Amino acid sequence: MAITVVGSVALDTVETPFGKIEMGLGGAASHFSSSSSFFTKINLVGVVGSDFPQEHIEFFKSRDIDVEGLEIIEGGKSFFWAGRYDHDLNVAHTLDTQLNVFETFEPKLPDSYKSPNILFLANIHPNLQLHVAECAGKPGFIATDTMNLWIENEREALGRVIAITNLLTINEGEARLITKEYNLVKAAKKIQDMGPETVVIKRGEYGCLLFHGDKIFNAPAYPLENIFDPTGAGDSFAGGMMGYLDHCGEINYENLKTAVICGSAMASYQVEKFSNERIREINKEDIRRRFEEFEHLGSFETMRI
Amino acid sequence: MAITVVGSVALDTVETPFGKIEMGLGGAASHFSSSSSFFTKINLVGVVGSDFPQEHIEFFKSRDIDVEGLEIIEGGKSFFWAGRYDHDLNVAHTLDTQLNVFETFEPKLPDSYKSPNILFLANIHPNLQLHVAECAGKPGFIATDTMNLWIENEREALGRVIAITNLLTINEGEARLITKEYNLVKAAKKIQDMGPETVVIKRGEYGCLLFHGDKIFNAPAYPLENIFDPTGAGDSFAGGMMGYLDHCGEINYENLKTAVICGSAMASYQVEKFSNERIREINKEDIRRRFEEFEHLGSFETMRI
Repeated sequence: MAITVVGSVALDTVETPFGKIEMGLGGAASHFSSSSSFFTKINLVGVVGSDFPQEHIEFFKSRDIDVEGLEIIEGGKSFFWAGRYDHDLNVAHTLDTQLNVFETFEPKLPDSYKSPNILFLANIHPNLQLHVAECAGKPGFIATDTMNLWIENEREALGRVIAITNLLTINEGEARLITKEYNLVKAAKKIQDMGPETVVIKRGEYGCLLFHGDKIFNAPAYPLENIFDPTGAGDSFAGGMMGYLDHCGEINYENLKTAVICGSAMASYQVEKFSNERIREINKEDIRRRFEEFEHLGSFETMRI
Repeated sequence: MAITVVGSVALDTVETPFGKIEMGLGGAASHFSSSSSFFTKINLVGVVGSDFPQEHIEFFKSRDIDVEGLEIIEGGKSFFWAGRYDHDLNVAHTLDTQLNVFETFEPKLPDSYKSPNILFLANIHPNLQLHVAECAGKPGFIATDTMNLWIENEREALGRVIAITNLLTINEGEARLITKEYNLVKAAKKIQDMGPETVVIKRGEYGCLLFHGDKIFNAPAYPLENIFDPTGAGDSFAGGMMGYLDHCGEINYENLKTAVICGSAMASYQVEKFSNERIREINKEDIRRRFEEFEHLGSFETMRI
């Protein structure tokens, strides 16, 4: 089993009320891969410049993340993002975005990446997502993430991506934006009508809702006392969720629910330090322990009336 | 066992995107009592004018809610509130507030109401809450609700109420306001330091967090496709929670968790129609069924890695 993931690999400068990191490992595909690599084998498709630190490449390799598909453009500069969070960590304020080599990114899939068990299309231009889906042979399952930019400006192309998607992850504001429906249960149904049997609506510090067919599952977020840097939480979430599903082999409602909790556990670690620094420190035992805390967080005895 | 509750009994005119009700039964104590009456005996302390429809009094009696403590001011007019909700049902727009007989409310407790197992101080001026607590003999347990108005304008009196409170219900914005702490885990600890061992932070459509000592429990909200009118959701929640606790007799962490889910189930019914119309229709079997749906909503199999 393996997941092929395509998305951004970047260098991030992030400032929060708790500190600052300069040129840390960033990008959706980086965070997705770091997180999912605890559960399964990852094939990474992306592009960076020759400024990309070798230590990050070595980190990927150390986690058994295949980087044959990570193109390095000689003399090019890596995608760079600078942002700031204030006390409301749900809102990122972008200070600078330099697409650099990402602007002309043409994803290329090594043959060994094709027909994966799961293809994860991280948040990039829907035309690139479509291109990768076409090049990927016959993926067993396609999961997709997106953002408001594409909903607003590339609605038609995004619709074609969603039509071939089995599982869409989307945050609640974007779910409302794409469906013009305030109520999330109705919004999820409208998205399901566009293609995916499974929709995961992310609600930041409130957790997420999983819609699978006509079933609904609610996952809490881990109530952290110190959220250090929320960057990459959604990607780490998706990584944990898809990684666990690939590890299970079978994608059914029971495994999806457990996978959503795995994703939530990974996201809770992601935000404890800058970049993926906390994810680099933890091991499977830490993940099991946090998963158990999630079991306690929402379990209760039945009513006696 | 019984709960003595003091709070507003009102007539509400409410407009939502889905319709309008004029002069419906409103007020925190009304909604609390309607909801909790499924679980235990309720003693209601409040005040209305002679314009208060007899049918509402009959409704209370039909639910075994004692109205000896509901003072009727001859020639007076009942507390009146008019409000509007738009599509974001988390935000109430007040159109009119007429305190009327509530302005000079002096709560009087019949002897049979004193030393109750549980005293619930619904959201009224903290001086009135203190007065009732002083008149109530020795309640076994005091639960309190409040709002931003008192946090901003009656901080000292509210502090004295919270100091004698065992369980405080508060919404997340108010929890941040009273503690000047954005993070809810930290905010809850600060509130616990003010007195209550137990704090329930209400998060509207996202559910709530229960803090009991150093334990944290997350309860989801029921994902409703149609929320008709959110008025009274918090009061119905508190009613279901406290009603179940009184029914149990013992207030411990296990019962608190189940009680929070009972409250969430009651709140989910509350918002399905205007005023407490839906609560009037349901029976214990409906409550059991919704409780079971909550059990499914958050349950998942353990991780296998």
